[in-house]
Amino acid sequence: MTYHDLTSHYRKLNQLVHVSRIVGWDEAVMMPRGAGDARADAMATLEGLIHQGSSDPRIAGWLEAAEAEALDALQRANLREIRRVYTRATALPQELVEAQSRAQLRCEQAWRMQRKENDWEAHLPLLSEVIRLKREEAVILAEQLGLSPYDALMDAYEPGMRSERLEGLFTDLAGWLPERVDEIVQRQSQEKLVRASGPFDVAQQRALGLELMAAMGFDFEHGRLDTSHHPFCGGVPSDVRITTRYNEQDFTESLMGVLHETGHAKYEQGLPRELDGLPVGQARSMGVHESQSLFQEMQICRGLPFLTFAEPILRRAFTEAARATPAAFEPDNLFRLYTQVKPGFIRVDADEVTYPLHVILRYRLERSLIERRLEPRDIPAFWDEAMRRTLGLSTQGNHRDGCMQDVHWPSGAFGYFPSYTLGALIAAQLYEAAVQALPNLEADIARGEVAPLSGFLAERVWKRASLLETSALIQHATGQELGTVAFKRHVQRRYLT
Amino acid sequence: MTYHDLTSHYRKLNQLVHVSRIVGWDEAVMMPRGAGDARADAMATLEGLIHQGSSDPRIAGWLEAAEAEALDALQRANLREIRRVYTRATALPQELVEAQSRAQLRCEQAWRMQRKENDWEAHLPLLSEVIRLKREEAVILAEQLGLSPYDALMDAYEPGMRSERLEGLFTDLAGWLPERVDEIVQRQSQEKLVRASGPFDVAQQRALGLELMAAMGFDFEHGRLDTSHHPFCGGVPSDVRITTRYNEQDFTESLMGVLHETGHAKYEQGLPRELDGLPVGQARSMGVHESQSLFQEMQICRGLPFLTFAEPILRRAFTEAARATPAAFEPDNLFRLYTQVKPGFIRVDADEVTYPLHVILRYRLERSLIERRLEPRDIPAFWDEAMRRTLGLSTQGNHRDGCMQDVHWPSGAFGYFPSYTLGALIAAQLYEAAVQALPNLEADIARGEVAPLSGFLAERVWKRASLLETSALIQHATGQELGTVAFKRHVQRRYLT
Repeated sequence: MTYHDLTSHYRKLNQLVHVSRIVGWDEAVMMPRGAGDARADAMATLEGLIHQGSSDPRIAGWLEAAEAEALDALQRANLREIRRVYTRATALPQELVEAQSRAQLRCEQAWRMQRKENDWEAHLPLLSEVIRLKREEAVILAEQLGLSPYDALMDAYEPGMRSERLEGLFTDLAGWLPERVDEIVQRQSQEKLVRASGPFDVAQQRALGLELMAAMGFDFEHGRLDTSHHPFCGGVPSDVRITTRYNEQDFTESLMGVLHETGHAKYEQGLPRELDGLPVGQARSMGVHESQSLFQEMQICRGLPFLTFAEPILRRAFTEAARATPAAFEPDNLFRLYTQVKPGFIRVDADEVTYPLHVILRYRLERSLIERRLEPRDIPAFWDEAMRRTLGLSTQGNHRDGCMQDVHWPSGAFGYFPSYTLGALIAAQLYEAAVQALPNLEADIARGEVAPLSGFLAERVWKRASLLETSALIQHATGQELGTVAFKRHVQRRYLT
Repeated sequence: MTYHDLTSHYRKLNQLVHVSRIVGWDEAVMMPRGAGDARADAMATLEGLIHQGSSDPRIAGWLEAAEAEALDALQRANLREIRRVYTRATALPQELVEAQSRAQLRCEQAWRMQRKENDWEAHLPLLSEVIRLKREEAVILAEQLGLSPYDALMDAYEPGMRSERLEGLFTDLAGWLPERVDEIVQRQSQEKLVRASGPFDVAQQRALGLELMAAMGFDFEHGRLDTSHHPFCGGVPSDVRITTRYNEQDFTESLMGVLHETGHAKYEQGLPRELDGLPVGQARSMGVHESQSLFQEMQICRGLPFLTFAEPILRRAFTEAARATPAAFEPDNLFRLYTQVKPGFIRVDADEVTYPLHVILRYRLERSLIERRLEPRDIPAFWDEAMRRTLGLSTQGNHRDGCMQDVHWPSGAFGYFPSYTLGALIAAQLYEAAVQALPNLEADIARGEVAPLSGFLAERVWKRASLLETSALIQHATGQELGTVAFKRHVQRRYLT
């Protein structure tokens, strides 16, 4: 059967991807500085082989023949996913791919320094070249996929999502959130916060992270926690590598970062092992992935039940600080610390209420760029206007904390930002569904009992991998269509009642 | 030019080897247990691609064409090495390679438990199958290479070495050493040893290892130190990964292990960067590699000058122990601790004087096996007889500490053992040459000044990579042919004067 040729091709290809993921993790976490050049060459050769395998011309014939075979639903779903990734892998001319790879590498490398130096003028030509090539890509993909140019890019991260639908969700949020932010800030200005004072020993912070990861169901037989400059979740489903960084003066940051990545990790660890290596066995989308990390972080771990569970563990981890400022470790105080809302410049530091406003700005900006309604040189003005309007902050002249803050555009990731907020919306819906399915959920969490919740997520999301298309998965997982209602209810409940 | 096609083929191939080395290191050092199966599949696919590249049929034609081109000495040496590795890579029928790979994997996996359980009877059939296939390999290689079957195997590790020559060296050592061992044991029985008592904090031991590695010239821009169950030196020249394990009760073991691996690492780090990825740019042989680790460990770091340099560093690292038993940290005492000679069962724990006797036993045994003068079932009797004769120890019924102690045979590494002792001989010659070239060597070492010594080794060994054949390299490096004289002088000087 041709279907089997196809699957064994993809399983084999995935074994090279496995190797590439481990070596990629090593580069970020372990590699000594001087090894960078040789490593880049080695990785380029491996990536070349992976690209060759992904765009193997035999696949087209196999696909056609397999689609005529008698297959079950799972196999059909696998074919659908194979066709999707194969179409994308072969859509672009080789010269364009190589030109992009060079332009993005140059732009990203320069960006690291240019951002520090707030040097938009030097950055503009490099970014303009990335955008020029990205527009070219979008037009080609749009034609092949029968989508608008922006949607053709976004479809890489969020299969099935269209900007028409996104527009509705985002317009709704953009209209509703700014006033809520004002109200919440106003309310919180009355609150008393107690902060434990450091230093907090890094080894102790790490031990605490490991303990709470384990409590939340991270499987250490199939994963690790390490340290890197930028936290991430890497590796492969059988061996998920999450990272964090430690701040000796404040343990709360790293701890919540670890729990966020734990959400990503549990999704990967929960994917159906028997589909490992097949396109249908992969996580559904970036938005669904982010829903798992935000569910863990925002819905569970920043909530009072979890913080009640964590209290004695935190006190044990930081005995001295707990003795010096016992009030800092009261669950109510921890909850207030972990739910502070404050308009700020930086997306990655934003709270869950202002975060969507950062995303919506970027979505509107990048969509305008791809649709040629905005030129690269006008990015800072667009940014400043949107920041003033939605968060009341000016970034005029402050490019570093404005349009130069993210690595996404320099590295060519246009169409990715919406996934963050889609993840937040799905996570809120999922929490409502979980509360309905598990009446004891909050009491369980307060006792550190996560097995029922993990069972729920496994059944609703993890085991489904890419068997369903995104909207069908969200319907299956949350019992409702993707919308803003649950998220708004969550904000109301947590911050305004 | 065809020569350039060849070199770019090998450089590319080496980039996959690079990836494989890093992932191999990860498996031993980082990988969580549950990831083993998926990792094994991923590695098998990568190794398959590497094998495919190494035995690419185009290489034969390229080699022939390139040998007719106008090339310089370096290029000629590169061709010689390419022909050597290509001949070996293509000599064996695919079915034999696969049968060996299966038999060795089964035998090695079973060996781990069988050794613990001292179960020779269960081990024998598995090992017999490995030996049967190895004999088959040896006959095929012998014909292709025009060597005796055993030499054809040994040539993989020790290019150019022949058993006729080895026989001379080993007969000499086997005749001379046992009496020396008796004399030394007799002398040392009068010595007073003071041992510091632990526990020695693992983090402190690691910090000490890092400090002394740096002092000995390990380049941390191109390498790391980590922990693994079996210490090794892995990675690639641009990124050398050495490992150790720690014993909380005794810091001396791990420390000397780290310095041994540092010797291997400096060789790799010192290989000419511009030849990276080419066969001519690789380390010369396993024996030469071992000469670098044994030079570092036995000639330098177990010597009084180094221990004089290390004394204050050790005292600083283990303040409490140094206060409790100051005499334990006296250089003379450290020297006596690090030069204890004692016949024992286990090769890897042996001192430098008895070590060659362990190797000679194995060499004679494995050569008899390959030449069909000995059958697998007679291994224990052969072993016991040799151990009694040379070291006065019986292993009758004690297979665990006898013929089942090493991983080499279960994993198919026949012909490897001689390299350990060749390394010791070369290291002793190299030390004599170093003393001649650097009149201040010992005073320098006692001050921790290693730059002149590193310069000497770089010039004599590291930068030569595989440009010279082994015997020419030894001549160049030490100013004399390979022999036993320097090693015997070293034993006399260190232990009997």
